[in-house]
Amino acid sequence: MQRYFVSEHDMKATVIEITGDDVKHISRVMRMQAGDEIICSNNAGRTVQVSIEQIADDKVVGSIKAELEPQTELPIQVTIAQGLPKGDKLELIVQKGTELGVSHFQPYAAARSIVKWEAKKAKKKVERLEKIAKEAAEQSYRERIPTVGESISFGQLLKDAKGYTHVIVAYEEAAKSGEASALTKVLNGVKKEDSLLVVIGPEGGLAASEVGELEEAGAILCGLGPRIIRTETAPLYVMAAISYHLELMR
Amino acid sequence: MQRYFVSEHDMKATVIEITGDDVKHISRVMRMQAGDEIICSNNAGRTVQVSIEQIADDKVVGSIKAELEPQTELPIQVTIAQGLPKGDKLELIVQKGTELGVSHFQPYAAARSIVKWEAKKAKKKVERLEKIAKEAAEQSYRERIPTVGESISFGQLLKDAKGYTHVIVAYEEAAKSGEASALTKVLNGVKKEDSLLVVIGPEGGLAASEVGELEEAGAILCGLGPRIIRTETAPLYVMAAISYHLELMR
Repeated sequence: MQRYFVSEHDMKATVIEITGDDVKHISRVMRMQAGDEIICSNNAGRTVQVSIEQIADDKVVGSIKAELEPQTELPIQVTIAQGLPKGDKLELIVQKGTELGVSHFQPYAAARSIVKWEAKKAKKKVERLEKIAKEAAEQSYRERIPTVGESISFGQLLKDAKGYTHVIVAYEEAAKSGEASALTKVLNGVKKEDSLLVVIGPEGGLAASEVGELEEAGAILCGLGPRIIRTETAPLYVMAAISYHLELMR
Repeated sequence: MQRYFVSEHDMKATVIEITGDDVKHISRVMRMQAGDEIICSNNAGRTVQVSIEQIADDKVVGSIKAELEPQTELPIQVTIAQGLPKGDKLELIVQKGTELGVSHFQPYAAARSIVKWEAKKAKKKVERLEKIAKEAAEQSYRERIPTVGESISFGQLLKDAKGYTHVIVAYEEAAKSGEASALTKVLNGVKKEDSLLVVIGPEGGLAASEVGELEEAGAILCGLGPRIIRTETAPLYVMAAISYHLELMR
């Protein structure tokens, strides 16, 4: 069934109201009519089944038929801190990361980031990424739309890291020595509702000084297998591993 | 250290010869000189450290300094059978799948595939995908370049499935019932050198009849978590889960 997000304000006790771009999607793209059913999430933990009552040019009104149990969010909150990559890689990361359950995307300017975000374009970039996150959240049946931060400095990232239960760094480790990897150990130790910050370097990787500062701040260095994977593949690997460990193995 | 593939014929007992596009990459892109070192794989299990002796316009000659232990290939052979997707998604799947350890990419025409490969363009499409696989294999330090097949029918895929140790189908399962997922059970049962066929549907998913025929052929239906992920994200999830289970957890 098609999914849409509505604001908390627009989801009342028994009725919902949809405005904005989704109206056109419902009426023109999906060609829905009164009586058709959709699922709506208020991005604050409430998801309901809705019967469409009325489709107007600028809004869709529906009545709530049933409250649904949330079931598509990861058991932990994951933030992907991504060293600013080149080109449109951040768009791929946000789209695929949303499908895989990311809660927050936090770009940061790493020592080896070649790209810089100009202040005057930053707002527009974030808005574009937020739009990608919303669409991917709807397509993947998420109950929460991931948030996207403006690019921060590495120093700020280090400060923010203190607010997380666990911090890991994707790192080209030496071959592991027989026992389970660092990533497995971290995932064995997470509890429901924990927060996890995943720090990924840009194309050139993290500088040694950055790795050192992250370790001093308590971060765990985690290898992602013996192959060298690109900066935009690393967050997808980590998210799939988190989902596999916490949702499929348990 | 930069990696290149050379043919078995061009990797002798003590010397190697590089021809083709890689010559330009070594001389112009990397600006290497005699004395610089590279790693070469012969795509047949042998990987060596090489000191460049001579760089000419049409070839590079090097002497072998050391034999290297293979260490970047997955312990099992994985084939991704991908229902023909739209646009350039197959390029993304081949690039990222190569980084994540895929052995063979096998496109097939699923009942709901909208795209068709015209016979006269198929060869060119495969060549383009093979080039992407080779470049990604070099960048990710693979010892083998994954192969890419021309698109086959679903019937042919069913026949080919008999040749694999394990066959799984990415499938939007009902919520799992407490115990470990089907994917985990399969991965718990694989042994070194086993072959695994992973069948992924196109954008619209597999038809019920296709799922039924795969099950009759012994395939295991595997859910990939509670979120709905796109056709091009599914193979990346599976490959990351395989790597996590077989390379990081063990």
